[in-house]
Amino acid sequence: MPSLADTLRQRREWLAALIDFPVLLWSGVRPARNFPANQYPFRASSHFLYFAGLPLERSAIQLQNGRMTLFLDDPSPAAALWHGTAPTRDQIAAQIGADAAYPYAELMPTEDPRDPSLLEVSKWAMEAATIGLPSPVRDAQSDMLDRTVEAPNIPNVVDVQLARAIVSLRMQHDSTAVESIKAAVQATLEAHRVGMQVTTTVTTEAGVRAAMEQVLMTHNMTTAYNSIVTIQGEVLHNEHYHHPLTAGDLLLVDVGAETATGWAADVTRTWPVSGQFSPTQRAVYDVVLAAHDAAIAAMAPGVEYRDIHLLACRHLAAGLVELGILQGQPDGLVEQDAHALFFPHGIGHLLGLDVHDMEDLGDLAGYAEGRQRSNRFGLGYLRLDRPLQPQMIVTIEPGFYQVPALLNDPQRRHQYRDVVNWERLEQFADVRGIRIEDDVLLTESGVEILTQDLPTQAVAIEQLVQSGRI
Amino acid sequence: MPSLADTLRQRREWLAALIDFPVLLWSGVRPARNFPANQYPFRASSHFLYFAGLPLERSAIQLQNGRMTLFLDDPSPAAALWHGTAPTRDQIAAQIGADAAYPYAELMPTEDPRDPSLLEVSKWAMEAATIGLPSPVRDAQSDMLDRTVEAPNIPNVVDVQLARAIVSLRMQHDSTAVESIKAAVQATLEAHRVGMQVTTTVTTEAGVRAAMEQVLMTHNMTTAYNSIVTIQGEVLHNEHYHHPLTAGDLLLVDVGAETATGWAADVTRTWPVSGQFSPTQRAVYDVVLAAHDAAIAAMAPGVEYRDIHLLACRHLAAGLVELGILQGQPDGLVEQDAHALFFPHGIGHLLGLDVHDMEDLGDLAGYAEGRQRSNRFGLGYLRLDRPLQPQMIVTIEPGFYQVPALLNDPQRRHQYRDVVNWERLEQFADVRGIRIEDDVLLTESGVEILTQDLPTQAVAIEQLVQSGRI
Repeated sequence: MPSLADTLRQRREWLAALIDFPVLLWSGVRPARNFPANQYPFRASSHFLYFAGLPLERSAIQLQNGRMTLFLDDPSPAAALWHGTAPTRDQIAAQIGADAAYPYAELMPTEDPRDPSLLEVSKWAMEAATIGLPSPVRDAQSDMLDRTVEAPNIPNVVDVQLARAIVSLRMQHDSTAVESIKAAVQATLEAHRVGMQVTTTVTTEAGVRAAMEQVLMTHNMTTAYNSIVTIQGEVLHNEHYHHPLTAGDLLLVDVGAETATGWAADVTRTWPVSGQFSPTQRAVYDVVLAAHDAAIAAMAPGVEYRDIHLLACRHLAAGLVELGILQGQPDGLVEQDAHALFFPHGIGHLLGLDVHDMEDLGDLAGYAEGRQRSNRFGLGYLRLDRPLQPQMIVTIEPGFYQVPALLNDPQRRHQYRDVVNWERLEQFADVRGIRIEDDVLLTESGVEILTQDLPTQAVAIEQLVQSGRI
Repeated sequence: MPSLADTLRQRREWLAALIDFPVLLWSGVRPARNFPANQYPFRASSHFLYFAGLPLERSAIQLQNGRMTLFLDDPSPAAALWHGTAPTRDQIAAQIGADAAYPYAELMPTEDPRDPSLLEVSKWAMEAATIGLPSPVRDAQSDMLDRTVEAPNIPNVVDVQLARAIVSLRMQHDSTAVESIKAAVQATLEAHRVGMQVTTTVTTEAGVRAAMEQVLMTHNMTTAYNSIVTIQGEVLHNEHYHHPLTAGDLLLVDVGAETATGWAADVTRTWPVSGQFSPTQRAVYDVVLAAHDAAIAAMAPGVEYRDIHLLACRHLAAGLVELGILQGQPDGLVEQDAHALFFPHGIGHLLGLDVHDMEDLGDLAGYAEGRQRSNRFGLGYLRLDRPLQPQMIVTIEPGFYQVPALLNDPQRRHQYRDVVNWERLEQFADVRGIRIEDDVLLTESGVEILTQDLPTQAVAIEQLVQSGRI
């Protein structure tokens, strides 16, 4: 693997080949939880991490023509007391290969700079393109509307050009990025194995989560997103962990590591608490797995990710027809979005420094130019609609869920009255949620399943859970 | 315990006895981590929690004359899909005893309200006092300067009156608050016992942290602050967990639960990884414990908390003189701040909905009117300087740390050249950091140590660690 400084220099050169204006990227700050001294763990901006390589708090970098200038304060005496000794600005500048380094405060234009060269830096800063950091209030709006909300003014032209340039770089991972994601994946797979093995010896979801996150912490990693470890798999982003584990439950576990420099893994497995799937659970599991396997088998550079999504939907629909839950032809069922009653999200997304990579840019990364999200029930949550390219890493994560808010909605029950066998469905009441999620690297000729060392077959999953019995 | 609705009604009546203007309190939003859909766990504003009782996202309450109006949207269909079914606005209003309830959007004045009564609400809102929510950028400024930064304009008079009224209520806990904190304490003590017992069976700090946080999660609680579980006890707010545990290490563990409605515990114990303190570790531990015990023994309503701090400092100094680390008279050493070389923080702080209760208000809660922080090295980090009152809950947390940034500072080495026996100190190299922290309730006549079921004596600590050996 090249050195960090070499990797970053290469990325700057790629960027300089795409744009000719200066760029300023900030790392961001730790938000307070309930008062200023009680903060959430720091997470640097991913765009900053891509070019600066390290999660430096309260820092900025300027990039131009392949050069990098670092703005960062030396650690204060109080910081040494509360947070321990830390490297100096100059040590960090050397590590990341910055061409120059100044205190953070000198980033702002001043009338009487102590160093005349700083005036140049400041003038330069005022012409720079940048990318906005998260804004809690606007993010709350985005969350409420389930889409990225932007101020309705016309975006700065260089900012848009910068964002497109960064998307094109971050979309196709370099070797350092691939190796970093592989490191996150390896820790994640170890965590999932441990999670399966402790399931029969702990009593709550919390016991499984704690054992898994311990593995990540031991690797000096954190979680790339709030872990989902739940017997209520039908709640897609469940963040409760206090439910007791009961023999008949399926446990849906979506836990992924993030390396110290911000690279993510994103892996889901679903396993039976008892170590054995019930016949109904096994039947649906195998339907989801067939969709998963078919999706990955069809992936290659040039293939449209949307087609992979629809292929998985048809496999799901076909499997549910075989089980007697749906009625009709798979193609027609998918055209009617009947699959989305049970699989209401997309087949996956880009993976990189963000678990949904570059989703801070809305659909700029996820959707090819000129495309936009569909309003269709079965396509609206698809986060990626582009032809696959070598060096992309994407997730493949089909699922089956019985979401009361969808299945008990009178309008939907009416709309799908002829295609769902509601009585037959009741026999599958012990299947609340199943998801199988792998991370897949596109190569020149096909794919490499980064998560392939963790089994997906039901029988292998059962064996892993049972192997933890004391 | 009274019902939640009764507790909240009582609090509103107390507030109405102190102020006669309307009040508007917001719950806040979840900040994004790296993109809008990837958020930190939600933590509602503590002032909102005190009067609304539940951690409702994107909500506000109006309080006036003992009445409460709730502003909250019903859960959206997308929320039901991603986060599960949730109670409706009306169900929540009934649970918390709100007198009226409207959608969140109707909080803002509109020209053409659908309901004429809402125009009244809106006019009313415009006259209301409030308390500002955390602002990530300003909080970063506060963190950098190690003090609360406010905009330099003159604060709204009613806002200051409201803050003082809330301080007077939240300072002296009602029975619901005390019972809630006791619940957080009980889960915390269980976590510490488990942490001690797993120490000899795990290999890293992460193993201890995970086992402890599992206990909290199982109680459907979270952590009130980022856990400190470290062999580098001299780093006061250490947030790394990947270091291996070695037989000679002391493990400093500062972990506290937060209940689902936001009430905190804050407990520290320090134990030997091997299950046995070395003679030097034991000697310093006993000095810290003597300071701890003397501080608690001196506590009673009317006693100045600052005097408790100075008493603990004198006990520490006296103990370190006995060990030959300091030289001189304890009183004189404390007057020179020599104790602060090894104990650079305050003896404790208020505890309540915030682990440093009401610290979002700067020192308005912590410091009696007319008092302000000292610039003295040995007093600057004291977070509470008031006479103790019944129903206060405070922490008592003396410590001993060898902080390189303090002890290797040439200016300090020169200043304290005659009072520190630096050669003798080198013999205590295996004592990096010790802290013993309990949570103490002031009663009418004395104190109740809420954390007393968890031993502090070295021999009892050793027994707990050793009891985990397989």
